[in-house]
Amino acid sequence: MARAASPYPVAVPAEPTQAQYGVVFQLDSGGDAAIKKTLANIENLLKDPRLKGKVTVELVANSKGYQVYDKNNGFGERLLKLKEHGVILAQCANTLRELHVDRKALYPFITIVPAGVGEITLRQAQGWAYIHPTPPSLME
Amino acid sequence: MARAASPYPVAVPAEPTQAQYGVVFQLDSGGDAAIKKTLANIENLLKDPRLKGKVTVELVANSKGYQVYDKNNGFGERLLKLKEHGVILAQCANTLRELHVDRKALYPFITIVPAGVGEITLRQAQGWAYIHPTPPSLME
Amino acid sequence: MARAASPYPVAVPAEPTQAQYGVVFQLDSGGDAAIKKTLANIENLLKDPRLKGKVTVELVANSKGYQVYDKNNGFGERLLKLKEHGVILAQCANTLRELHVDRKALYPFITIVPAGVGEITLRQAQGWAYIHPTPPSLME
Repeated sequence: MARAASPYPVAVPAEPTQAQYGVVFQLDSGGDAAIKKTLANIENLLKDPRLKGKVTVELVANSKGYQVYDKNNGFGERLLKLKEHGVILAQCANTLRELHVDRKALYPFITIVPAGVGEITLRQAQGWAYIHPTPPSLME
Repeated sequence: MARAASPYPVAVPAEPTQAQYGVVFQLDSGGDAAIKKTLANIENLLKDPRLKGKVTVELVANSKGYQVYDKNNGFGERLLKLKEHGVILAQCANTLRELHVDRKALYPFITIVPAGVGEITLRQAQGWAYIHPTPPSLME
Repeated sequence: MARAASPYPVAVPAEPTQAQYGVVFQLDSGGDAAIKKTLANIENLLKDPRLKGKVTVELVANSKGYQVYDKNNGFGERLLKLKEHGVILAQCANTLRELHVDRKALYPFITIVPAGVGEITLRQAQGWAYIHPTPPSLME
């Protein structure tokens, strides 16, 4: 049976109009599931045909999100691949102090910023988008 | 007893100054509670007297958030009402592929976008606000 | 052993270029842990040397986030200190009606806004950044 024509014309996806885009991702939760979801989101963004080669991404980790940069957690290869694509990997200095995390426990190729929330503020003021994925939950 | 005058003058709500506003909502969690909270947020936004008739909304679903558009989950009527108010209902194509969701399991009146995070990026670059409600949790 | 020079030059933190910044924080979750994390985030932002004295902050509470303003929950002193730093403390009116919260149960020095999501929309349209911390979870 043919589907009836929809009375609601389907909208079209947004189209790129700028030469360059910036996006700051926030990761402020720990645990493998939260980290993997955020990294996959960034990887998908870099592959979006509308933005490919036109988007600069920064990942800002604060609170338990620092775990993404912990050498013991196994995300090094994936992070380096992102870095090769120009992704800035930023870690909140307040978090290191408050959660007693040794800088040396984290990969050397990250950037320490005074406050993760300050970094996010400055990037948005520069016109960058902000995306904060929600960690997977037991309720979904 | 009369309340003493506050030493802190109460601030006033923000006032609209633009003719048009855009807002992109992200839903990347599944489960009825998360979905209902997001839809209620959008409905409340459309009724805010400061923005009524001046705001274009897009709901971008990715990750488990696709469930809002699943025909089996019963949100069709509420979604169509939003669509009548001009809300764009967008679904991330990566999610469909990664979670093995059949496009036909979702309502026909939605818009498929290459990457949900790409769509959110493009909308913010157009000057739209971004709002990402937090799913209800067992800890609150 | 000396660490080999990294093939990936480390990026530098974002630098302030504006005289003034605005940031709207959203709190739409209840529970002490979520509230404390959000307040700590705001306190850290105000102390970021890149933004100190240049940033106006608004905290918008909706959904269970109203608990931050409940007189029974003990955040009064911390909120007043934020208010002294110019932080606008805003509460969504829809939430009060929908969750049957008496305005008098909340501190008198807050500002009621028609819709929390409307307030967030208007602030972002004014060029303010949006930051929505994720509540701590049992999975991290």
